[in-house]
Amino acid sequence: MHATVRAALRSIVGPGHYRETDGELVPYSRDATPLFSARPDAVVFPADTSEVAAVLELATRHAVPVVPRGAGSNLCAATVASQGGVILVLTRLNRLIEIAPEELLARVQPGLTSAALATAASHENLLWAPDPGSRTVATIGGTIATNAGGLRGLKYGVTRDYVLGLEAVLPTGEVIRTGGRLNKDVAGYDLSRLLTGSEGTLAVITEATLALRPAPASAGTGVAYFPDLAAAGRAVTAIIAAGILPATLEFLDRSCVRAVEDFARLGLRTDAGALLLFGDDGEPGAVARALTRMGEICTAHHALDVTTAAHIAQAEALLAARRCALPALSRLGDLTILEDATVPRPRIAEMVDRIGAIAVRHGVEIATFGHAGDGNLHPTCVVKSRDDHDGIARAERAFADIFAAAIELGGTITGEHGVGAAKLSHLSAQLGEDQLALLRRLKTAFDPAGILNPGKLGS
Amino acid sequence: MHATVRAALRSIVGPGHYRETDGELVPYSRDATPLFSARPDAVVFPADTSEVAAVLELATRHAVPVVPRGAGSNLCAATVASQGGVILVLTRLNRLIEIAPEELLARVQPGLTSAALATAASHENLLWAPDPGSRTVATIGGTIATNAGGLRGLKYGVTRDYVLGLEAVLPTGEVIRTGGRLNKDVAGYDLSRLLTGSEGTLAVITEATLALRPAPASAGTGVAYFPDLAAAGRAVTAIIAAGILPATLEFLDRSCVRAVEDFARLGLRTDAGALLLFGDDGEPGAVARALTRMGEICTAHHALDVTTAAHIAQAEALLAARRCALPALSRLGDLTILEDATVPRPRIAEMVDRIGAIAVRHGVEIATFGHAGDGNLHPTCVVKSRDDHDGIARAERAFADIFAAAIELGGTITGEHGVGAAKLSHLSAQLGEDQLALLRRLKTAFDPAGILNPGKLGS
Ligand SMILES: Cc1cc2nc3c(=O)[nH]c(=O)nc-3n(C[C@H](O)[C@H](O)[C@H](O)COP(=O)(O)OP(=O)(O)OC[C@H]3O[C@@H](n4cnc5c(N)ncnc54)[C@H](O)[C@@H]3O)c2cc1C
Ligand SMILES: Cc1cc2nc3c(=O)[nH]c(=O)nc-3n(C[C@H](O)[C@H](O)[C@H](O)COP(=O)(O)OP(=O)(O)OC[C@H]3O[C@@H](n4cnc5c(N)ncnc54)[C@H](O)[C@@H]3O)c2cc1C
Repeated sequence: MHATVRAALRSIVGPGHYRETDGELVPYSRDATPLFSARPDAVVFPADTSEVAAVLELATRHAVPVVPRGAGSNLCAATVASQGGVILVLTRLNRLIEIAPEELLARVQPGLTSAALATAASHENLLWAPDPGSRTVATIGGTIATNAGGLRGLKYGVTRDYVLGLEAVLPTGEVIRTGGRLNKDVAGYDLSRLLTGSEGTLAVITEATLALRPAPASAGTGVAYFPDLAAAGRAVTAIIAAGILPATLEFLDRSCVRAVEDFARLGLRTDAGALLLFGDDGEPGAVARALTRMGEICTAHHALDVTTAAHIAQAEALLAARRCALPALSRLGDLTILEDATVPRPRIAEMVDRIGAIAVRHGVEIATFGHAGDGNLHPTCVVKSRDDHDGIARAERAFADIFAAAIELGGTITGEHGVGAAKLSHLSAQLGEDQLALLRRLKTAFDPAGILNPGKLGS
Repeated sequence: MHATVRAALRSIVGPGHYRETDGELVPYSRDATPLFSARPDAVVFPADTSEVAAVLELATRHAVPVVPRGAGSNLCAATVASQGGVILVLTRLNRLIEIAPEELLARVQPGLTSAALATAASHENLLWAPDPGSRTVATIGGTIATNAGGLRGLKYGVTRDYVLGLEAVLPTGEVIRTGGRLNKDVAGYDLSRLLTGSEGTLAVITEATLALRPAPASAGTGVAYFPDLAAAGRAVTAIIAAGILPATLEFLDRSCVRAVEDFARLGLRTDAGALLLFGDDGEPGAVARALTRMGEICTAHHALDVTTAAHIAQAEALLAARRCALPALSRLGDLTILEDATVPRPRIAEMVDRIGAIAVRHGVEIATFGHAGDGNLHPTCVVKSRDDHDGIARAERAFADIFAAAIELGGTITGEHGVGAAKLSHLSAQLGEDQLALLRRLKTAFDPAGILNPGKLGS
């Protein structure tokens, strides 16, 4: 990167918010995705929208890549500077601008964490529904830009369902405002939704107006153990066919349950083939009835054991088992490669069988957990040592087969984690070349110089 | 339109599905929008996706405008052939392809009516939530392409929240498939949502996969009369601030109540200044409690009279009052100009006051009804005679002021009816020139020859 560009960047954000030495760049050379890293040329921490606009305008003028970044917790190498350039970190724009209870909305800057928004909303007896496992660190900007899902997707949907309006800076420096404070607004193409999930490739989000919901009055959770994941999958299908759309339907396979129990000592039953967490929230009576019915359906589908926790504290303890699945698995080796294949709910059991066969075929160990209500599986491959190049190669081949299986079963290569650099080469199998060409034309309509997060979605 | 193009069109769809005589073109010269009409050169009724693709490919090659059309029930002149060309009517693609109860989804062709889908879903004890007043005629394609709202928006959202996947034909003839059967799918930019609300300007929708919900076990509705609309508006704000997110919150002002009562003899109280319909659905106990609380809040906010109907049949009768507001007003004159300004909920009372002042200023009569829960107002101006050119001009000036007021109060010029040809000139006040330029670049990314519904959104 040319010295004049460096100087200009430094003067836009101020010297205290500009980094370029090797040591300073290391933490920004990777995100939460294993196996991907690249050294950026500089990192900047703008203070506000006008600094973001100045950086982008400069970058377009000099054809310098810019990678927007929140907490860097994404799992698809979406913030790796594959083509060098500038990492634009949004964490200084972290203000909660307002919560308007009578409008059920919040207005926030992108660097605020998801958990901070959830806490602030709860003080007003409101719920910020998107709930990714990474919520304590993940920023709202990253959550929107990845259209993050989470543990409440079946009942509450995903981040996109909560984006009312955005302020965003185009790569050419113009500031646009999409949507607003309204649930209903059809003036123009739906840019709020187009930017949601665009993985920092179309524009930089500098403010968001987000829908909140009334906080549910109560919540309850239950656990059922099954002989195998296929049986749990059949119970999930039956629960939904019975007209129940619960807040939680999460599962862990045998390996995950064992890893979690080793890690967190929650008293889980480690002899079963699968654990299903089911839960709901809302009016106390309705929650209790939903829990009872889900428990009965699990029993009817050969659950080995069913228990329910009708209090929020107990329910949270059970959910903790699910939340710590990834950290627990991570302890088992140097490298935890987590995937995100998603299939129509009734195909979960079939997909789990296929994953098992694929693991055997490639000689790898794959533990699977995920959001059963959404068909969103997280097959996770633990490689004991970073130096096991053959093991890593086998894991990658196994995942390629898993993606193919997901597509074949009518699913997707990514339910919530995104495409990033990690899955770009698999995208044409999912969408076809005509659609990829269209995505590239859309990308160009936003970003004529191709400076925003190049080598990712839209490339 | 050149004779070779006519011949090619005739041969693509077959002579029985091609129209070009004056008499045949009349019904396709206008839609449900008053004051707009234009004569197309031809009308075609394709049988399937490949015929749609052939028509579009031909049109791009010969730079002939194509206007996709469902039932033509839109209220923003979105299907008027302002630049001539071909009206592409999708009503022959009207198959319900499947309902998959265990996946809570339906797959349909675009020409199916919204009501037909709702009925089919109800037979499986499922709910097709989008509920525009025009549902008995409106097609799914038109409903998606306008991102239609309706009477259940507050609790159930709008059409966009139910679009899982689309098959669509690009103006250049390629067929793409976006999304699929999944609630969670982040592979690529969100084209499903970008096409939703794109008003037939980006691609022609030839198939849709749509989310259904478990049908609610029960529903109930209540009516409250208020001295004026401002008081009703305050009750609405208080209901939502109390954490209730009901299925129905609709209001009618004094003129609407009188028109409806004259029209339908429902026994409504015509001395009050405003009528608020409130309702909810779900578990019977929860519904009863919600109705009681909403009734109490209305009373506390100076309602003159509150009654509730706890049975679906009674509730439907009350909702009928709201549904017939537009037909009832239409009887009062030759011309009923209905608008769609939407403001943040707490500004409803202020907006209603402004509408009143604007009506006085321009010497027109404006009756207002709408979706109070969404801040979505339908100020409606009845002009007695089509020949009253001065009256029409005054109504148009009044609506321009209403749009400006909506924007000033943080709202939008269109909450659900769309932009079409009718509101295109007001769009830059809403979105700004930078965003309009971006919309045009997006349009070009889809439609390089500019053949699809020209003179509408994206122009
Ligand atoms: C332990 C763990 C659990 C997780 N659980 C879940 C889960 O349950 N569900 C789920 O969906 N994901 C999950 N994730 C993935 C990830 O954490 C989330 O997607 C998260 O929301 C990303 O936020 P971030 O601030 O870290 O974004 P980053 O990783 O910094 O960035 C993600 C993407 O957003 C872009 N971006 C960031 N900020 C902006 C902005 N202001 N404007 C434009 N683009 C921007 C970046 O360029 C990048 O493309 C998990 C990750 C971990 C490590
Ligand atoms: C009495 C009445 C009540 C109404 N109530 C409501 C209401 O409560 N809420 C609401 O939102 N609207 C309402 N509307 C407006 C309108 O009826 C709805 O938006 C409806 O969904 C439009 O469907 P349609 O089939 O008539 O579409 P059309 O009017 O034929 O077309 C509408 C738009 O969609 C495009 N289009 C149609 N089919 C396709 C396709 N297959 N692919 C691509 N583009 C396509 C057209 O080009 C046009 O831009 C009402 C209208 C009337 C007359």
